[in-house]
Amino acid sequence: MTWGESHGPAIGVVIDGCPPKIPLSVEDIQKELDRRRPGQSTIVTQRKESDAVQILSGVFNGVTLGTPIAMLIINEDPRPEAYEDFKDKFRPSHADYTYQMKYGIRDWRGGGRASARETAARVAAGAVAKKFLSTTYGIQILAYVKQVYRIMASVDPNTVTPEQIESNIIRCPDQKTAKRMIKAIDAARKQGDTLGGIIECVVRGVPPGWGEPVFDRLHADLAKAMLSIPAAKGFEIGSGFGCVTMKGSEHNDPFVIRNGRVETLSNYSGGVQGGITNGQPIYFRVAFKPVATIMKPQQTVDIHLQNTTLQAKGRHDPCVLPRAVPVVEAMTALVLADHALRHKTICQWDK
Amino acid sequence: MTWGESHGPAIGVVIDGCPPKIPLSVEDIQKELDRRRPGQSTIVTQRKESDAVQILSGVFNGVTLGTPIAMLIINEDPRPEAYEDFKDKFRPSHADYTYQMKYGIRDWRGGGRASARETAARVAAGAVAKKFLSTTYGIQILAYVKQVYRIMASVDPNTVTPEQIESNIIRCPDQKTAKRMIKAIDAARKQGDTLGGIIECVVRGVPPGWGEPVFDRLHADLAKAMLSIPAAKGFEIGSGFGCVTMKGSEHNDPFVIRNGRVETLSNYSGGVQGGITNGQPIYFRVAFKPVATIMKPQQTVDIHLQNTTLQAKGRHDPCVLPRAVPVVEAMTALVLADHALRHKTICQWDK
Amino acid sequence: MTWGESHGPAIGVVIDGCPPKIPLSVEDIQKELDRRRPGQSTIVTQRKESDAVQILSGVFNGVTLGTPIAMLIINEDPRPEAYEDFKDKFRPSHADYTYQMKYGIRDWRGGGRASARETAARVAAGAVAKKFLSTTYGIQILAYVKQVYRIMASVDPNTVTPEQIESNIIRCPDQKTAKRMIKAIDAARKQGDTLGGIIECVVRGVPPGWGEPVFDRLHADLAKAMLSIPAAKGFEIGSGFGCVTMKGSEHNDPFVIRNGRVETLSNYSGGVQGGITNGQPIYFRVAFKPVATIMKPQQTVDIHLQNTTLQAKGRHDPCVLPRAVPVVEAMTALVLADHALRHKTICQWDK
Amino acid sequence: MTWGESHGPAIGVVIDGCPPKIPLSVEDIQKELDRRRPGQSTIVTQRKESDAVQILSGVFNGVTLGTPIAMLIINEDPRPEAYEDFKDKFRPSHADYTYQMKYGIRDWRGGGRASARETAARVAAGAVAKKFLSTTYGIQILAYVKQVYRIMASVDPNTVTPEQIESNIIRCPDQKTAKRMIKAIDAARKQGDTLGGIIECVVRGVPPGWGEPVFDRLHADLAKAMLSIPAAKGFEIGSGFGCVTMKGSEHNDPFVIRNGRVETLSNYSGGVQGGITNGQPIYFRVAFKPVATIMKPQQTVDIHLQNTTLQAKGRHDPCVLPRAVPVVEAMTALVLADHALRHKTICQWDK
Repeated sequence: MTWGESHGPAIGVVIDGCPPKIPLSVEDIQKELDRRRPGQSTIVTQRKESDAVQILSGVFNGVTLGTPIAMLIINEDPRPEAYEDFKDKFRPSHADYTYQMKYGIRDWRGGGRASARETAARVAAGAVAKKFLSTTYGIQILAYVKQVYRIMASVDPNTVTPEQIESNIIRCPDQKTAKRMIKAIDAARKQGDTLGGIIECVVRGVPPGWGEPVFDRLHADLAKAMLSIPAAKGFEIGSGFGCVTMKGSEHNDPFVIRNGRVETLSNYSGGVQGGITNGQPIYFRVAFKPVATIMKPQQTVDIHLQNTTLQAKGRHDPCVLPRAVPVVEAMTALVLADHALRHKTICQWDK
Repeated sequence: MTWGESHGPAIGVVIDGCPPKIPLSVEDIQKELDRRRPGQSTIVTQRKESDAVQILSGVFNGVTLGTPIAMLIINEDPRPEAYEDFKDKFRPSHADYTYQMKYGIRDWRGGGRASARETAARVAAGAVAKKFLSTTYGIQILAYVKQVYRIMASVDPNTVTPEQIESNIIRCPDQKTAKRMIKAIDAARKQGDTLGGIIECVVRGVPPGWGEPVFDRLHADLAKAMLSIPAAKGFEIGSGFGCVTMKGSEHNDPFVIRNGRVETLSNYSGGVQGGITNGQPIYFRVAFKPVATIMKPQQTVDIHLQNTTLQAKGRHDPCVLPRAVPVVEAMTALVLADHALRHKTICQWDK
Repeated sequence: MTWGESHGPAIGVVIDGCPPKIPLSVEDIQKELDRRRPGQSTIVTQRKESDAVQILSGVFNGVTLGTPIAMLIINEDPRPEAYEDFKDKFRPSHADYTYQMKYGIRDWRGGGRASARETAARVAAGAVAKKFLSTTYGIQILAYVKQVYRIMASVDPNTVTPEQIESNIIRCPDQKTAKRMIKAIDAARKQGDTLGGIIECVVRGVPPGWGEPVFDRLHADLAKAMLSIPAAKGFEIGSGFGCVTMKGSEHNDPFVIRNGRVETLSNYSGGVQGGITNGQPIYFRVAFKPVATIMKPQQTVDIHLQNTTLQAKGRHDPCVLPRAVPVVEAMTALVLADHALRHKTICQWDK
Repeated sequence: MTWGESHGPAIGVVIDGCPPKIPLSVEDIQKELDRRRPGQSTIVTQRKESDAVQILSGVFNGVTLGTPIAMLIINEDPRPEAYEDFKDKFRPSHADYTYQMKYGIRDWRGGGRASARETAARVAAGAVAKKFLSTTYGIQILAYVKQVYRIMASVDPNTVTPEQIESNIIRCPDQKTAKRMIKAIDAARKQGDTLGGIIECVVRGVPPGWGEPVFDRLHADLAKAMLSIPAAKGFEIGSGFGCVTMKGSEHNDPFVIRNGRVETLSNYSGGVQGGITNGQPIYFRVAFKPVATIMKPQQTVDIHLQNTTLQAKGRHDPCVLPRAVPVVEAMTALVLADHALRHKTICQWDK
C-alpha cells in the first residue's frame, strides 16, 4: 500500500506478507529509486529530489522479519507555488477534474495523489519483490524502451542485458535508435510538447505453474498492474494485438522435449497459457501516452464551470518512458511475488 | 465467484454484495446466456446446451434481497469420451500443460475448469450487474466485433445500437463487413483452422467520479477483467497503442462547457482520466487469439514427457469472437458495478 | 461463501482455495451433515430434511482438483405458510427487525437468510477443511456440550473421544450430566420455552507457528468465527474470563523440555500465545443464548410500527446446543485450514 | 494497516478508505494517544515516549482528502539492551517462542512486533474513525475498567460519561472502587507480579441496520477486533456468558414503540440482533489476562532447547487495563467505521 501526495511532507509504502529471512539492505532499494529519480538526465523533469529511502520496520540485522516493511521518502523540493494556476483550472487529460468530481476536494499541488511521484513508493516496494524473486528463484526482470513516438527499436528479449539497458539515458538497449529517441524528446521539449512510447518487459526464470486459472490469471494481473501506472493506455502479452492476423495453426506454440524439459518451439503465448506460466520467458508491452502537462496554451474549463485557457509552468517530463522503465519492472516484480506466494499456498504440498 | 468444470454435472456462480430491491427475473439472465450459448449458429461449436439458468437464492418476489444470489446451469451434453486423447497429450497453447504443472492433477474432460464454458457463469453474473447499472444509473454497455483476422469493420461507437449488433451471427454492426467475416470463419473451419479478432466495447451514461486513484484505476480493472477472458491477448483504452504516434498537444482532450456540463472536445482518454471516469463514453478494445484447439495434426508432448503428435476431435469454435461479445459486456458490467458500489462507499456523502 | 434462504429452493456453499489431491467423497461431507440435521432426535426441530449433499465441482476421481468446490443441498420440506404471522410482526431478539431496517426488504419465510439453516452449508464446507487438516497434519477437532442452562458437565479436554461425544443425543461426553440436560430441555420444550448453554472445543495436533501476529491472531479469527454462529453471545480461549482472578505468576505457562520437545506445564494460554500456536492443545468455549423463537405469547411491534403480541408456530429447536456442536467444529476447521495455508505462504521456505 | 517494532526507529499506520472532507487535526489524534501513552501515571510502564504523532498524507487544509492517511510516531526511548536476556530465553506466556517457531527469526528487542507498543498505531487510526463517526453520525464510544483482579466496579453503561472515566488513573468511573483497584495494582507491582481485569465498552447512537448477516456479523467483527488486542482472552456481548442461565422467555428483548421509534424493553442483545444493529446501545466486555512479563524468576527454556530460568528486567506494566481502555475504544471505532461504509455501499439507495 502506497501513500503520500506529491508536494506533501513525504511519500511511502508498507509491504505486508514478505517472507522472513530475505537479505535486504537500503542499497537494494536505493539503486532502483535512483533509476526513477527526477533530475537524472536532461530529458527528464529537473525537480531536485534525492529520493533517499528510509526503512522503518520489518528488517532486522540485514534480513526481513516477516512483519510489515515500512519505507519512507521525504519530499525535499516541493514547490506548490508553481501550481497555483492549477488550483482553479483543470489540466486537459490530467486527473484534476476527475479527482474533483470524485472527492469534491483535491490537493492541487502538483497533482497531489495523482502525481507520478507516487510511483517512487512502488519502485521501493518492487525492489523488495525483486530481491525475493532473485534470491529465492533466480528470476530476472528486464524492461526497456521499445518505441518513442514513431521511432522503434530492434531488441531481442531473449538476450538483452541490464548493462545494455542502462547504457543510455533513454534506457533503450538499441544504442543507435536510442540516440534518435533522445533527439526527438529534446526537440519536443523545446517546443513545449511531449511524446509517448512503448516499454517492453521480459521475465526469465519463472517456473511453470504460477498464476490462477480464472479471474486472477497471471497476465490479467500484469495487465492491471501496468494499466495502473500513470499514462499507460494499453497492454499486450506475447503476440498481443498481432495475434489477430495469424491463424490458429500459425499461432499455436508446439511443445517439444529439449534437454529433458518441456519447452515450446515458438513463444506467441508470452510464457503464459490459460493464465498460468509454462516455464518459457514472459514478455509483454505497455503503451504510454504523451505526458498531459504541456507548455503550450490549451483550451479548458475552471472550477466555476467557465471556459478558459491554461499554460502550464513547473517542472515536468517531456517523456515518461525512461523513468517508467523501473516502474514497469517494479510492478512486474510485485505481481510475480504475489503469485509465487499464492502458488506456494495451494500447491507444492509434495515439496 | 464462479465454479464448475466443462464436463462435470453443472456450472454456476454466486454474487455477493448486490444491493436489495433491484428487479430481477430469470428472463433477465436467460436472454444474455442465449447470446453466449453454443449451437446458436453455424460458425460456433455445435455442443447442445440449452444453458437454462436457475436462480436458487437472493431473489424474492421478483426483486433482489441483498443476500447472495446463486445461479446454476446444468451441463446437459457432456461428452468426455471425445477428450480421451487429451488425457495424456497436452494441446499446444491450451491450459492442459500449465494446469498439470500447477496442480499435479487436472480434469482433462474438455479442458475442465479451463474451458471457456466457465464464461457462461460470468454472463449470468454480468446480467445482474447490467440490470443494476441500467435501472439505477441508465448505463448502456455495448460490445461488438471490430475485426476478424485481417477484416476490419467501420463502426461509430457513439451511435451503434444493440439492434445493429444482433442483426447478424458474427455480432458486427457493419453489415457488409460482417458477411466477409462470416465467410472467412467458414473457410477457416473447413480447413480445420481457427481465427482471432478484436472486440470493441463502449459504455454510455457513466457519471464522472467512478474509479480509484492508484492501483484500482477503472481502466486497470477493465484490463484485468478483459485479460481474464480465455484467449484474450491485449487491451487498450481510448487511443490505446495508437497514442504513441501522437504528441501531447494532439492527444490531450480539451475541456469545454456544453449545455452547462463539462465535456471534452475529443475523447482519446476513452472516458477515464487518472483512473477515474470523466463522464464521457468509455471505450476500449480487446484482442482475441485464434482458438488453440485446431483440427490439424500438431507437434506436442505427452505426460510421460515424450514427443508426439495430436489431432483434436470434439466440438469446438472456429472463432470465439461472436460468443465472446456477451462475455466482454458481462465483465464490463461487473467491473462497473463494483466501482459504483465503491464510489458510493467513500464518496457521495452529501447526497 | 455460503448462499441460500431457509425456505427457498436450496442452500449451498462454494469453497475456493482448497489444495489439490485431497481425497474427498460425498460420505465425508454427509456424515457431518447428519450430525447437524433436523429431526435427528426428540430434542431438536422436527422439520424433515435429509440434507443430502451434492458435490457439483472441484472433485474428480475422488480427489480435489484445486478448483472451486460447489456443494448443494435441496430444501425438501419448506413450509412457508407456518411463517405468515412473522411477515408483519418482528420476533423479539430475532433478526426480523434488523434485516428489515438494513435491506428494506426480507424473506420472512422461516427467517430467510437469517435462519440457522444456513449453517448446514458451513458444516459441508467444514467437512472439507476437516479432511484436509486430518489427512495433511493429523489434526483432530472435538466440540461437545459443556453446559445447558445451569447444568454443567465435567469433561477433560485432553482425553475426550468422539465416541463419548456421539454416545447421546445432547452430545455431552459426561453421560450422567447428559441425561439431566436432556430432561431439562424436554421440560423447557413442554413449557414452550428454550434453553442456552456452553460448547467447549479442543483441537489436538496443531503444529507451533500457525496464526498471525497482529489483527488476524488465531484466537481472534476463532472468536469471529464462533460469534458468527447464530445465537452465540460470548467466546473465551484458555483461561478466558477466569484469567481475571489470577495473578501473572499463577497464570503464566512455564516452558519445559519434554521428550526433546518444548511443552508448557500448564495451558492457560489455550494453545495460542501472541496470536500464534505454541503446539499445545487449543481449547475455547462459546456461549449460546436460549433460542429466540419461543411458543409463548410475547410483546412486540409490527411493520406498521404498532404495538402487538406474537405467538410463534412452526418447528423450532428448544435448545440449539446439540446441533451447534458440528457447526462449532466446522467453523474451527475452516479457520485452521485458512491459517495452515497462510502460514505455508509466508513461512516454511526451508522445508 | 499498522507497522513497526517496539524498539525500531518508528511505528505507524496507514488508513485507506476514509471518506473525504472529514475535519481532522493532529490534536484529534494526539489527545487519544496521550491516554495510551506510557509514563502517564505510577501504575503504568515508565518508558519515556511522548508519542507525538505526525500526519504525513491524506489531510489537506484541515480536512481529509479521501486518499490514504499515513501517520508516524518516532520511538524516542528504545533501550534494547534491557532485553538482551530475552534474546536466547523465551518468556513464558509471551509471543517470543511462537514468533521464533513461525518466522525462524524475531526482533527480540522488547518483543519487537509483538509488543503492545503496536497498539499506539491502532489508537491513532481509531481517532480518525472516531472523528468520522462522531461528525457524521453523532456516535459516542466509551470504554472503562469494569474489574481488576477480584475487584468489580458498579457502572451504568447508559449514563456513564467521559469525564467520570478520565477522573482517575485507572479509568474506572466508580470512584470508590477505582481507589481499591489502584491499591491492588500497586501492591502487585511491588511484589513483581501483575493483574488482569475486564473492560466494558458502550456505544451510543448507532442507527439500526449496520452489520452483515452471516460471517461478518457486527459482534463477530467486534469479537475479532477485541481478541486481536494483546492479552485479551475473552469477549461477550450483551448478556454474554450470563445468557446461559436464562430461559428464552426471560432473555428475549420485547419490542415496543416509544416516541414513535422502535425500542426494546430490555437489552440483553447488546444492541445487535442477527449480526445487525437494532438502534439500542451496543455494549460488550473484554477479559484481559495479567501481563506475562513479571519480575519474579520463572521456569522456561532457551533457543538451544535447554531448561533454564528467567527473571525479567526492563520497564513493564503491572496491569494493562488503564492503557487498554483507549485501545478498546479505537478498535471499536474502526469496526464501526468499516460497517458504516459497508452498509452505505449496499443499502441506503433511497437516500
